[in-house]
Amino acid sequence: MNFEEVLEQKIDKTERSIGRYLPREDGFAGKLAQAMNYAMKSGGKRLRPLILQESYETFGGCGQEAEPFMAALEMIHTHSLIHDDLPALDDDDYRRGRKATHVEYGEAFGILSGDALLNYAYEVALHSFDLTKDYSRTALALQILAAKSGLHGMLGGQSVDVDWEGRPVDKEILQGIYLKKTAALLEAAFMIGAILAGANSDQVRAMEQVGRKVGLAFQIQDDILDVTGSTQELGKPAGSDEKNRKATYVTLYGMEAALSQVKALSSQAVEILQDVSRGNDFLLQLIQWLMTRNK
Amino acid sequence: MNFEEVLEQKIDKTERSIGRYLPREDGFAGKLAQAMNYAMKSGGKRLRPLILQESYETFGGCGQEAEPFMAALEMIHTHSLIHDDLPALDDDDYRRGRKATHVEYGEAFGILSGDALLNYAYEVALHSFDLTKDYSRTALALQILAAKSGLHGMLGGQSVDVDWEGRPVDKEILQGIYLKKTAALLEAAFMIGAILAGANSDQVRAMEQVGRKVGLAFQIQDDILDVTGSTQELGKPAGSDEKNRKATYVTLYGMEAALSQVKALSSQAVEILQDVSRGNDFLLQLIQWLMTRNK
Repeated sequence: MNFEEVLEQKIDKTERSIGRYLPREDGFAGKLAQAMNYAMKSGGKRLRPLILQESYETFGGCGQEAEPFMAALEMIHTHSLIHDDLPALDDDDYRRGRKATHVEYGEAFGILSGDALLNYAYEVALHSFDLTKDYSRTALALQILAAKSGLHGMLGGQSVDVDWEGRPVDKEILQGIYLKKTAALLEAAFMIGAILAGANSDQVRAMEQVGRKVGLAFQIQDDILDVTGSTQELGKPAGSDEKNRKATYVTLYGMEAALSQVKALSSQAVEILQDVSRGNDFLLQLIQWLMTRNK
Repeated sequence: MNFEEVLEQKIDKTERSIGRYLPREDGFAGKLAQAMNYAMKSGGKRLRPLILQESYETFGGCGQEAEPFMAALEMIHTHSLIHDDLPALDDDDYRRGRKATHVEYGEAFGILSGDALLNYAYEVALHSFDLTKDYSRTALALQILAAKSGLHGMLGGQSVDVDWEGRPVDKEILQGIYLKKTAALLEAAFMIGAILAGANSDQVRAMEQVGRKVGLAFQIQDDILDVTGSTQELGKPAGSDEKNRKATYVTLYGMEAALSQVKALSSQAVEILQDVSRGNDFLLQLIQWLMTRNK
């Protein structure tokens, strides 16, 4: 099997794993569960849970306790997408070729289903305590999950992005937004897998660096694709950044610098990963694949 | 000191305790932290954290590990208030006599600060692991916190309330909404205090019943006050339920039944509490006081 076939298989497995943690739709608040699941079933690469699982295996993890965290991380990511699409934020009616959750279920349910997914992520991740005897690892993994998702992580980045809308950001602000809004959850994925498998604190810190570099490179690659990609490939309007007069890595540094920065960051990530891990070839290939993706 | 003076002192102490867990406002996402704190500092009786602390002491708790949970519970409650006030939900411009968070900081920050408070609640509650050696109690307390806040608790109740807006609810739906939207977080307060202090599972279940009855009584009392109270006493427009044609306990059962139901529920709560607890007089008085409040 070539890399893309292996990737496809692993995405399928991740998908099934996440599926086991989705809420039932037949309870008192069934419609809310439906809206949550609608958003969760909108596809995507399941990159964060996939990385979490690979990081877990890299450090010798072989139990079940990573699974709840995989679902939780995808729920937090999906919560942020639902709320990003709301009229008061990006006001996007479509997401991955389907109606956005607030369009399908109404704006109130867009807000509440995002809230409920964020909360459900913790409900699900807390199940991990029932699957392990090592409470301290689970506790630390939860602390990382929460820290990377919130005020000092993803949500903080999102808020600064919103706050600067329509004003010209400088390089420092842009870097801060990318680190928080995009890299933070990837850092969480790399770190939590390592923590649950029993990696030591140096290794966990190294994995945080890997996530940081992959996250930055990933976001800059997004900026590049917005200029070079076709609308069909992207599944969203190409050139939207320019249309929205949004400052990106490409507009601030130029295309050439952006391309070489993606290369440099992914090389650094690969180097750290080779150094710290037991040589998970798939994870190394995944990083390289992410940087050459065209959608 | 009479009861109200003691209550005042305890509210002050709770206020100070919560204040120690609020985020700093000088970081990268400082404006988001400001919006979070703006909502958190809007006053209120701090009923949930106060009950949590009292329940903790009732079962002999004397450490610090309840404090993070007190702040967390108030953050989750405040998150729900911020989002309730949004234009797509109740569309209220004022809360406790001040501008609502989304009016003061804009709608995008209304959404994001609610999200960030919900997430921060878990960040803060997870600190409890650093204050105790008994990880299993903290883990269980977190599981209760998450379960009572989410799809099967407060957020679920809120979603059904929104979903039935403008349609006549029956008694069963109304009861369900009150149990989830209002009682669930009060159940969490009574239960978490008991769990952290080491109460056994029968005692925790009894405290859940106390919370359930207090929560229901509290909500029905709200319906009564909406009819009988003055706008000045309530700090919000009296008669708003009738104006909004909202079905309430009073409209479905009549005033007399509502009044006697509040009395019955609070007597039941007091009875269970006397039975299970070591006779926390303050908590008993608090329940009685809540049922005779006029605002």
